[in-house]
Amino acid sequence: MSIDQRNPPHRQTPFAYVDMGRLQRNLARMQTVAVQHGVALRPHIKTHKSIEIAELQLALGAIGITASKPSEALPFIRAGVPSLLLAFPVIEAKRLRPLLALANEHGTAITFILDSEAGADALAEAAQQAGRIIDVHIKIDVGLGRIGVLPTSPALTSLGEAVARNPKLRLTGLISHAGHGYGATSPSVLAEIARRERMLMLESRERLAPLDLPLRLTVGSTPTVLATEDFSGIDEIRPGNYALFDLTAQRLGVAIEDEIALCVVATVVSRNSQHYIIDAGSKALTSDLGPHSSGGLAGFGRVLLADGHDIGSRLTVSRLSEEHGFVPREDTDLPIGTRFLILPNHSCPVVNLYDRLVISDSPEEDLTVSARGALI
Amino acid sequence: MSIDQRNPPHRQTPFAYVDMGRLQRNLARMQTVAVQHGVALRPHIKTHKSIEIAELQLALGAIGITASKPSEALPFIRAGVPSLLLAFPVIEAKRLRPLLALANEHGTAITFILDSEAGADALAEAAQQAGRIIDVHIKIDVGLGRIGVLPTSPALTSLGEAVARNPKLRLTGLISHAGHGYGATSPSVLAEIARRERMLMLESRERLAPLDLPLRLTVGSTPTVLATEDFSGIDEIRPGNYALFDLTAQRLGVAIEDEIALCVVATVVSRNSQHYIIDAGSKALTSDLGPHSSGGLAGFGRVLLADGHDIGSRLTVSRLSEEHGFVPREDTDLPIGTRFLILPNHSCPVVNLYDRLVISDSPEEDLTVSARGALI
Repeated sequence: MSIDQRNPPHRQTPFAYVDMGRLQRNLARMQTVAVQHGVALRPHIKTHKSIEIAELQLALGAIGITASKPSEALPFIRAGVPSLLLAFPVIEAKRLRPLLALANEHGTAITFILDSEAGADALAEAAQQAGRIIDVHIKIDVGLGRIGVLPTSPALTSLGEAVARNPKLRLTGLISHAGHGYGATSPSVLAEIARRERMLMLESRERLAPLDLPLRLTVGSTPTVLATEDFSGIDEIRPGNYALFDLTAQRLGVAIEDEIALCVVATVVSRNSQHYIIDAGSKALTSDLGPHSSGGLAGFGRVLLADGHDIGSRLTVSRLSEEHGFVPREDTDLPIGTRFLILPNHSCPVVNLYDRLVISDSPEEDLTVSARGALI
Repeated sequence: MSIDQRNPPHRQTPFAYVDMGRLQRNLARMQTVAVQHGVALRPHIKTHKSIEIAELQLALGAIGITASKPSEALPFIRAGVPSLLLAFPVIEAKRLRPLLALANEHGTAITFILDSEAGADALAEAAQQAGRIIDVHIKIDVGLGRIGVLPTSPALTSLGEAVARNPKLRLTGLISHAGHGYGATSPSVLAEIARRERMLMLESRERLAPLDLPLRLTVGSTPTVLATEDFSGIDEIRPGNYALFDLTAQRLGVAIEDEIALCVVATVVSRNSQHYIIDAGSKALTSDLGPHSSGGLAGFGRVLLADGHDIGSRLTVSRLSEEHGFVPREDTDLPIGTRFLILPNHSCPVVNLYDRLVISDSPEEDLTVSARGALI
């Protein structure tokens, strides 16, 4: 079977299909990276939001998981993950109550992040209410320009001191996410962003040395982790996308097409002189062009053929209605009923559209997307 | 209260908020359009996917609903809608089995659409299996270039004849969706698209006159319906977006900002020298730039202030991570914890991200998004 001719299950389209063989190889690859470089792996589960996949990651050696927000964390705590890092700057104590109660009930080690005094106040208040001390990491902005304090700013030391002084908080580390790596236009640019992330994290820890606290350094993002060879001084990596990969990972040179483990399977339901029309639109594929509004990809997904056809050319989804996609026919002449397998630009928001991920012909084997849509 | 300072419920952010007053006015406005022009209103429920809102539409006078696909239709049939048009070209008989069985059980009048012989074969097979005759509309391509036969094509008459000959099918109408209207750059261009849609539908019916069948003409899209004054010869309109509207509807001149009934409520969780960082990203707002991949809008949503602040300037979401949004600060200086109310580019895929829509402080009153995420 060539990589153009995968063989997805015969389920009613559209559906999101996870190739478990590819997924397992991706998980093993990242665990090997972690072992080889002597860093702990704490995968971000935002990509798959699936307890079953998190359990595979833990079984391979991940020390725990990373989650974005309380509603994403809750199902994983209930499922018994041993350790969880909530990589979102919560600024309201009340938001943490159910999370702390559940973590306490399940004996989950939990770490929070902050980048402001408002965040420190909220965490301390939540700790007070829960009658416990909370572990926190300070977020460092290593270039994305999103959350975090700058490595050179007075805010880093003043925040470090404030947290260290607070009897309800225990400062245990520094955390970064070099999401600007997704905008890299070449492997060398990406490697330089990763190198710089490490240097900035080391410098930040050095600036907090007067606190005399053992500070763990945890860095994130699949592309930067896979683009670097030097993890000296780093304790932990938090990639998420690597479980499934996507066209963005391929564009960045950190995965090959054959490693992309997620696709949306669709059917040609109509055709006109210009386009095949498929039953997958923005509600099956998202309109996402790449993480952090990065771009560099043409269209809304690359089309492979399912079921052994071979057209000798690559098709792309060029336009999306909500339930229809437009695929320019190029030089091809395929009949209505043809199944397309669409590699997504960005896997993470695609998974977020579905309640279940298909892995076989049997609905009983579907993976549950456990952490989407919740309001809390 | 100025239109910049709405007062959304105090729930944990991010959440999708529907202003029921605005919604009710929007529903009444469209029903008035239908009554004034003597056309039936069959709203498309893809926008809200909510049984509660569909019931409001029916109570105001809608004759039934339009749905995109079987999985979207099923909850509404269960809820007792009297009549349903499935506006998607189903090409597999097996896909229709649960739908026909459920419609039979509930006594729902149901109409399907087709644009190919493959579709006619599938519908006839499903009718045969269900032991009944199926009502069908032929889809006409009035310029979107998506599904449908061209008004001037031999395919229209040959398909019309094939359907009329088939003892399991009853040809009851022609259907169009002028989705290319979303690309209009001025009200006059939009009005011209709507005018042309009507002319092409009348011509198409004329070409099928030899069949001597009473053919209903049903046209769609909120912008074209609101941009036209002449519905002569048209029997039915199928707008969907009008229930909530969005920045696209405002851009097209068919709604004012004060009519936009959906927003995403978010909180400023961090700020740096350039941006406010909010807790709503692509998984709360979508990366959608407009229906049918139309554009013409800057960024991923317009920011209003909740809670009575007044900043005297307009902010925009310029960039999206999955759980964070970037809002350039412009000339403002707002604290962490400020709530933003974000008007979406395109309401329909935003609703599709949520399981519940907030309408008040009380979770018990949340609307259920009944028709998303299902695999069948």
